[in-house]
Amino acid sequence: MIVVMREGCTPQQVEAVVQAVREMNLKDHVIVGTERTVVAVIGDDRFKDRCALESLPGVDRVVPILAPYKIASRQTHPEPSVIALGGRYGATVGGPRICMIAGPCSVEDRSRLLEVAHAVKEAGAHALRGGAFKPRTNPYEFQGLGEKGLEILAEARERTGLPVVTEVMSIDQVLLVAKYADVLQIGARNMHNFNLLLGVGKTNKPVLLKRGFSATLNEFLLAAEYIIQAGNPDVILCERGIRTHEDYVRNTLPLAIVPAIKRESHLPIVVDPAHGTGHAYMVPAMCRAAVAAGADGIMVEVHQDPAHALTDGAQSLTPEAFARTIQEVAAVARAVGREL
Amino acid sequence: MIVVMREGCTPQQVEAVVQAVREMNLKDHVIVGTERTVVAVIGDDRFKDRCALESLPGVDRVVPILAPYKIASRQTHPEPSVIALGGRYGATVGGPRICMIAGPCSVEDRSRLLEVAHAVKEAGAHALRGGAFKPRTNPYEFQGLGEKGLEILAEARERTGLPVVTEVMSIDQVLLVAKYADVLQIGARNMHNFNLLLGVGKTNKPVLLKRGFSATLNEFLLAAEYIIQAGNPDVILCERGIRTHEDYVRNTLPLAIVPAIKRESHLPIVVDPAHGTGHAYMVPAMCRAAVAAGADGIMVEVHQDPAHALTDGAQSLTPEAFARTIQEVAAVARAVGREL
Amino acid sequence: MIVVMREGCTPQQVEAVVQAVREMNLKDHVIVGTERTVVAVIGDDRFKDRCALESLPGVDRVVPILAPYKIASRQTHPEPSVIALGGRYGATVGGPRICMIAGPCSVEDRSRLLEVAHAVKEAGAHALRGGAFKPRTNPYEFQGLGEKGLEILAEARERTGLPVVTEVMSIDQVLLVAKYADVLQIGARNMHNFNLLLGVGKTNKPVLLKRGFSATLNEFLLAAEYIIQAGNPDVILCERGIRTHEDYVRNTLPLAIVPAIKRESHLPIVVDPAHGTGHAYMVPAMCRAAVAAGADGIMVEVHQDPAHALTDGAQSLTPEAFARTIQEVAAVARAVGREL
Amino acid sequence: MIVVMREGCTPQQVEAVVQAVREMNLKDHVIVGTERTVVAVIGDDRFKDRCALESLPGVDRVVPILAPYKIASRQTHPEPSVIALGGRYGATVGGPRICMIAGPCSVEDRSRLLEVAHAVKEAGAHALRGGAFKPRTNPYEFQGLGEKGLEILAEARERTGLPVVTEVMSIDQVLLVAKYADVLQIGARNMHNFNLLLGVGKTNKPVLLKRGFSATLNEFLLAAEYIIQAGNPDVILCERGIRTHEDYVRNTLPLAIVPAIKRESHLPIVVDPAHGTGHAYMVPAMCRAAVAAGADGIMVEVHQDPAHALTDGAQSLTPEAFARTIQEVAAVARAVGREL
Repeated sequence: MIVVMREGCTPQQVEAVVQAVREMNLKDHVIVGTERTVVAVIGDDRFKDRCALESLPGVDRVVPILAPYKIASRQTHPEPSVIALGGRYGATVGGPRICMIAGPCSVEDRSRLLEVAHAVKEAGAHALRGGAFKPRTNPYEFQGLGEKGLEILAEARERTGLPVVTEVMSIDQVLLVAKYADVLQIGARNMHNFNLLLGVGKTNKPVLLKRGFSATLNEFLLAAEYIIQAGNPDVILCERGIRTHEDYVRNTLPLAIVPAIKRESHLPIVVDPAHGTGHAYMVPAMCRAAVAAGADGIMVEVHQDPAHALTDGAQSLTPEAFARTIQEVAAVARAVGREL
Repeated sequence: MIVVMREGCTPQQVEAVVQAVREMNLKDHVIVGTERTVVAVIGDDRFKDRCALESLPGVDRVVPILAPYKIASRQTHPEPSVIALGGRYGATVGGPRICMIAGPCSVEDRSRLLEVAHAVKEAGAHALRGGAFKPRTNPYEFQGLGEKGLEILAEARERTGLPVVTEVMSIDQVLLVAKYADVLQIGARNMHNFNLLLGVGKTNKPVLLKRGFSATLNEFLLAAEYIIQAGNPDVILCERGIRTHEDYVRNTLPLAIVPAIKRESHLPIVVDPAHGTGHAYMVPAMCRAAVAAGADGIMVEVHQDPAHALTDGAQSLTPEAFARTIQEVAAVARAVGREL
Repeated sequence: MIVVMREGCTPQQVEAVVQAVREMNLKDHVIVGTERTVVAVIGDDRFKDRCALESLPGVDRVVPILAPYKIASRQTHPEPSVIALGGRYGATVGGPRICMIAGPCSVEDRSRLLEVAHAVKEAGAHALRGGAFKPRTNPYEFQGLGEKGLEILAEARERTGLPVVTEVMSIDQVLLVAKYADVLQIGARNMHNFNLLLGVGKTNKPVLLKRGFSATLNEFLLAAEYIIQAGNPDVILCERGIRTHEDYVRNTLPLAIVPAIKRESHLPIVVDPAHGTGHAYMVPAMCRAAVAAGADGIMVEVHQDPAHALTDGAQSLTPEAFARTIQEVAAVARAVGREL
Repeated sequence: MIVVMREGCTPQQVEAVVQAVREMNLKDHVIVGTERTVVAVIGDDRFKDRCALESLPGVDRVVPILAPYKIASRQTHPEPSVIALGGRYGATVGGPRICMIAGPCSVEDRSRLLEVAHAVKEAGAHALRGGAFKPRTNPYEFQGLGEKGLEILAEARERTGLPVVTEVMSIDQVLLVAKYADVLQIGARNMHNFNLLLGVGKTNKPVLLKRGFSATLNEFLLAAEYIIQAGNPDVILCERGIRTHEDYVRNTLPLAIVPAIKRESHLPIVVDPAHGTGHAYMVPAMCRAAVAAGADGIMVEVHQDPAHALTDGAQSLTPEAFARTIQEVAAVARAVGREL
């Protein structure tokens, strides 16, 4: 890190910074500029608290140089990670093939789930999504079927061969969800739920980690790092949109994160255009765009009858629309040298 | 809610909306305008999913009319709630007196905590804050002392008489933290952790609920509603800044939420200018501003030696600076007809 | 619009709203719900000020129903507009062909501009961009060559046949820039410069209108409406990124605006991934994504020697990188049924 | 500035950075860390383009150390600037007295303007605001009375002795507005209109410069620098709210900018809570908060009959509400050691 001193700081203040750097077992290097003095700090300062230096008298600010994550970084692991999802057909995320994850927002009942699972399978999906535990902003809304929903998902896996991706909302659900699911999803609202990250980090199931509404890139990769350093290397990142001033979408979907992640990390990245926009009519265009930008997979919501969906109907595709979208995505994938 | 149809929608599409409204056991009222048709929905639609209507053909969008929260609203409970914090001196939040909550970001060791507890008490604080469990973005940083920290906080309460406010990060910590603390703090990163909200809602300790980084006002009050409807009416709201494009602060502190909350809800609201700005030099100004805007309390970080604080040193006041700030806040409080 | 009354409003307050609506020559329709009363306002209220109603006692808020723009809307003009750019080869934006606009951020000198103009032409570009007047945040930075730059651009058009797109920053430059340029660019910082919008609206040159950093979709289309209603129907919209909390990009590029514009307006939309991300390494990915999302064109910065560019070097492609990018874009265009 | 090299960069790449730094007539200082190499650049690099360095191979990013503004900075001018506004009573901004600027959003007609001018004067205002040229997002809305409005404002100054603050929207209006007004206001939408900044910088009238919706602190001070370096030192900064995701306000009012400006610059800062919130009910609270935070002045909209205001009725105070607010502000001013 670089400690930038204020203009007019005293030699004593610079000396105090130097001392503090040495107390951290790091090396200092003072550079007296024409207008500002800076203290360059040499050594691995990832685990040091820069706030301590920021609060010293005469310090203007502290600029980090090293990325705060390590095992999630491309430098530590130059080859892209390819993560196996389970299921009967060897679905993976992160290799040359684009992974399509599809299914209803929430599991509503057995017959509807099985029907849509077959439909997405036929259309070409590689994994089935569906929520058994639903995080709802509104306490009065449908909260999911719980374990019953997990059982239905497991049955759908048996019948279709597709691996199941489903959300775990709380540390006390980890074992239960891991018993049924192939991939544990961490929702955007839980990206900063560090106890939960450690909890899924202790399982041997791949984790699909959604970016928080207002998380930075560093925070997103640090959340992945929590999971990996707890023992689970199989983290799939998922961009699902951020909160901005825009009002024609539910969230703003920032696809430039795809090349940014590819540069900084070895982890695969999947895009969720349904939550990322909130409107079904935008979903096909943003699926194509995500794949064109280099995403490793797409996660979409599919429902037979969006108008009667218990959750997220407005952003769900019908099975027919999904089948068309998957064709469009396949064409774009080929155009960028990949395939479904 | 109001269902706005698209231009050129068909009578059949309007009829389908009407049917869907009736299926929800609500009443419809169709208004044919000169350019748009809208369907006004009459009845309590708080518990209905507007997405279902949004996904119907011919529908442009659905505009909610009712606020989604109910028991947190001022209409349900016109008088402001006054919440007792515990401790020996009858501290409350929400009445005419401004409540000052002060202490270190995290409990680092017994002697330092007791020293700062006495210092903030002498300066005039009404409650002691301090973290035993610390949510850290970076898995390699200090994570708090855990139960040992809670014991130290409890000892500080015995010695100073100040009630203790401390964070509970995870549902498996609720009972433990409730055993030691007077007020359970839910951090910004957990405002959407619904299982945790339900967990603290089942205790009989007041809850200080921090607003999420990018939560809307409705989401903030719905999170309070989760706690209240689980059985715990004693929710103190806390504004701690939001994520924006601004780069001279760690967060943007939006004080207009204070009059907004006063208008919409009966719950008291406290402001945290330390997290809300990230810079100690801004904290006194923003403490004064928060009280001038009508806040019911202030939460600040105080540390004897910010440069050696294990967490958040850059935004901590020294005990001396805190003592000056509390005098300034008291003067502003009197100017707006309140007192400390 | 819909006037939502506050809970507990009086009949007199509702009556005052009704009177105010009638004073506006609009029709009122009062709906008494179980919890709220709303007054639906019938008629074309686009030109009425809803603030007047919002300030009446007992009014909670006013919800607009009609989009505020009219001649920019798809309803008024269902067919997509195809806009001719000029130049020798009949370049257009808005039809089945994707339009590639390329060139340096600013015109630095004659030989460099002519060289890059030939390079982008050979690579397949359809129009040449380059700034003669440069809006610079910093008053000490290079401000452009002014009229000399325009002359160089005009020479480049003669030599390459490519139409020239260049920025006009101020109302006193409109005639001068229109004399040399084929397309007048309005920069993001001027999207709300209404006098300038009227100024270019009085010329007969197509206008490339960039979205403001924090403009909403409505504001963007209203800015286009300013130009069109002043007499110039040839407006090309350009998305160039918005300000958000994200820090790994200079701006966040929200590609979902592409399907949104296609739904709401007949105007073509072009995407500028250089400003939209700020990093050259992201530009090819975002060019591909924009076309996959349905954009009608792409605008990129190309410079022979980005490290010595006077402006925006960090986001400029070399001619070689541009040539590769155009091949990638062409492949994606074919995948979505279009061509370059 | 500090040039941070990528991991694994080659010695040749570092050497190329060193050469580029020397070409800029700056000194280089290479520091080889354990994980990263950085090149510290020594000298005044404010007028150098860091993009040039960012685009060199092997460079990760360039971190500026010096603030980009110079004559607006506190370092150049340690004493706070006190700016005289004109009028008969010697109103100033920036000294110990808080300056209250009040009046309607726009001048609607002579009698209404004179009436409100007398009312705000009696209530204790120090300056009169009112728009003759109105920037309107919507081309169909009231655009102001133009020169007629300026004449009415001038008459109001003669009758009340209050200096007049009014907006200049375009470079071709500068001379006209300067002929009538005492203070030239630059609106938020024009903060980046550099030609206009230079235009008002050539007058001898004080300029009230509003912050752009999404401007950073650096951009705000650079806009002030444009005006000052054009020859006009009398710049008054005005915070009027920023665009964020918040939906209970028209803008988010970030009051922490007040202590930030006080630290970084000698220029006075005024707060506009009407535009900063969009709701009249929040204005008194935010006026008090702004003064408590250290603002040098307040700008508010006052209208006799907000429900019939042609512009911004929803955020205007009545003269009675303004008179109450000014008393509240005076009490807070005294509490922070200032007066009205």
